[in-house]
Amino acid sequence: MKAEIISVGTELLLGEILDTNAQHIASRLPALGIDLYFMSKVGDNLGRLTETVNHAWQRSDLIIMTGGLGPTEDDLTREAIAAALDEKLFIDPASEQALRSFFASRGLTFPERNIKQAMLIPSAQPLANPRGTAPGWWVERDGHIIVAMPGVPPEMELMWEAEVTPRLTERSTGAVLITRTLKTAALSEVHVDEMVSDLLKSTNPTIGVYAKTDGIHLRIAAKAGSAEEARRLIEPVEAEMRRILGTAVWGTDDDTLEGVIGRMLLERGLTLATMESCTGGLLASTITDAAGSSAYFLAGYVAYSPEIKVALGVDPDLIEKHGVVSAEVAVDMARAARLRAGADIGLGVTGVAGPDPLEGKPPGTIHIAVHDGKSPQSISYIYHQGRTATKKRAALAVLALLRRTLLKNR
Amino acid sequence: MKAEIISVGTELLLGEILDTNAQHIASRLPALGIDLYFMSKVGDNLGRLTETVNHAWQRSDLIIMTGGLGPTEDDLTREAIAAALDEKLFIDPASEQALRSFFASRGLTFPERNIKQAMLIPSAQPLANPRGTAPGWWVERDGHIIVAMPGVPPEMELMWEAEVTPRLTERSTGAVLITRTLKTAALSEVHVDEMVSDLLKSTNPTIGVYAKTDGIHLRIAAKAGSAEEARRLIEPVEAEMRRILGTAVWGTDDDTLEGVIGRMLLERGLTLATMESCTGGLLASTITDAAGSSAYFLAGYVAYSPEIKVALGVDPDLIEKHGVVSAEVAVDMARAARLRAGADIGLGVTGVAGPDPLEGKPPGTIHIAVHDGKSPQSISYIYHQGRTATKKRAALAVLALLRRTLLKNR
Repeated sequence: MKAEIISVGTELLLGEILDTNAQHIASRLPALGIDLYFMSKVGDNLGRLTETVNHAWQRSDLIIMTGGLGPTEDDLTREAIAAALDEKLFIDPASEQALRSFFASRGLTFPERNIKQAMLIPSAQPLANPRGTAPGWWVERDGHIIVAMPGVPPEMELMWEAEVTPRLTERSTGAVLITRTLKTAALSEVHVDEMVSDLLKSTNPTIGVYAKTDGIHLRIAAKAGSAEEARRLIEPVEAEMRRILGTAVWGTDDDTLEGVIGRMLLERGLTLATMESCTGGLLASTITDAAGSSAYFLAGYVAYSPEIKVALGVDPDLIEKHGVVSAEVAVDMARAARLRAGADIGLGVTGVAGPDPLEGKPPGTIHIAVHDGKSPQSISYIYHQGRTATKKRAALAVLALLRRTLLKNR
Repeated sequence: MKAEIISVGTELLLGEILDTNAQHIASRLPALGIDLYFMSKVGDNLGRLTETVNHAWQRSDLIIMTGGLGPTEDDLTREAIAAALDEKLFIDPASEQALRSFFASRGLTFPERNIKQAMLIPSAQPLANPRGTAPGWWVERDGHIIVAMPGVPPEMELMWEAEVTPRLTERSTGAVLITRTLKTAALSEVHVDEMVSDLLKSTNPTIGVYAKTDGIHLRIAAKAGSAEEARRLIEPVEAEMRRILGTAVWGTDDDTLEGVIGRMLLERGLTLATMESCTGGLLASTITDAAGSSAYFLAGYVAYSPEIKVALGVDPDLIEKHGVVSAEVAVDMARAARLRAGADIGLGVTGVAGPDPLEGKPPGTIHIAVHDGKSPQSISYIYHQGRTATKKRAALAVLALLRRTLLKNR
């Protein structure tokens, strides 16, 4: 099945936003056995949008569109599909009902112009959008399919998963590309490359090495007639990779460090507290991104000033002697967090988020610590790629250190 | 001048990398007076690439291509342009010389297959690439221009800046497009649409309304012979918009809510503390995303359990009476944060991040509060788009409420 993606929105052509939707969809097509040949972006202009849909209809079996389903005059995806297919728009009573209920359930009056979101053409079926007001479209005619989804990423992602993927799985007959990603921590890209250099020569599956914020990822990609067959090709390569990389592998595919750590803490019945300075709450926020984290995460303290650190139990003598940006204070923050919250493990992080230096230390100076009541662990490093990236990298580094501590104390 | 961008590379179609090159170029075209109508991505396939160049040649004056200029068999941009324009490739002696020097200067032997990077067609001139081996192409024929640049971002960016921008500036006779974005809070998209409906009819400048996580954005885009002229067209529309929207406008262009609030706090000499539950640290992290926030942000408390809330000073009777997910507890968290940190203002947020309900309340139930020691303010709402989005929206809602409180107490 030959596919193409069309992203709709003038803001895309103005370079104001990155089109993450198209990438999201593109990354999921190989496993469905669908070959993506083109991706395009077009503005909120009926003529050009219609021309684009027309051209795509001629060369592709499947057209996946995002954006342009909102209630305003600028939202023209429905109109363009109708024009390209020469079909008439009408109001679908069931969609109208769903739309009115959506507003009513939130205690809002229904703005009558939103009625356009309940429109269909004879070849279109509505796709449910539990996260928003605009239903998607599933259009099927003359052996071609058009899928139209909203541009808001969370709405698009849920609709893709729940509504579109099952329908496409049913219709696809092509060879399937299945991937398996192993995620590692505490190794450099060059180091990983050297360790698995023999495997890198493989052609099916192929191996790719990618540097990400949460560590080095290795992707194994196999092509075969079925998903099971592809998985059988992947299996021995994954086993060999795991043998080589050992405990540096912390997760696979959609695993997140906070999710993996959450499971380890739950298994061990341990609780957690944090005290952070330069990450400003991002460490606690990352931990609580994992659903169910309230079972092990007790409290987080963001101690942005030395006074607050002392008020929360950090030893003022250590601050005086080593400065707030020091491994000693990071360890004492972890100790204080643990004690104050009555948690099994405390995490501490202090450093310089930037852009300016602090205590004469350059932006990107980071000290992180884990305290389990017995043997505190700490790591220090300097790495600066701007304030936000520095915060994120530091938060993930603390979680990687926590994981290693938990593995040791098994 | 009607333009389109074509990004070349199978890895783009596999969703393995985000196409930041295309966004980079797109964001720079309006100020050059060039209208971008289409953006496409196509894989390393000669047939489809040639067809794409052909189609673009028919509908656009300017085609900007990135990628596919490397030395391997997969790199087919030159071949596709030659085929589309029906011209013959030949080796350009000057480019060959430059290529051989590049390798010699690094003490490397010249791989003979790289000779293809020295190829031209009669209508093409080479564009210097000081950061890599592949020169770009500037093709000009029959009133059409094709620019081909390497896909490696730093190489592309320098070539764009040093080689392409001056040539395009020379040739562009088109009007310049200057944009101005007003960012609002506390209004719905439909509501904003209705308020400015008269302005939406304007054709120069045009007005776009966009829903973002931090509120509704209005973009005014004006076209004129010069940047100054365009700004003169924007001015009265911006003034009228500000008159209509009043204090709902919190910022412009690259402003962030945390940055705007930071400036307000600094101006007023006020300090801040937070106590958060469902946002799990994201509120504090967002506040500290603003550089220099240590001047006003004293402390953040992430109180994930009722026990920790009480330990931090929240009234246990309120929790018993109203539940932790209540406006009353949000206000008391703001009060307790303020007192404990000795800050002028306390912020509180409690709710259900999801995916599961809490105390019988559905995911997305959010109570936020601002306490300045005199008259606490609180807002409650329900809005769920998944755990991460719910956290982000709640953190930004607190900042929007804080801004309104600061405006009132001016």
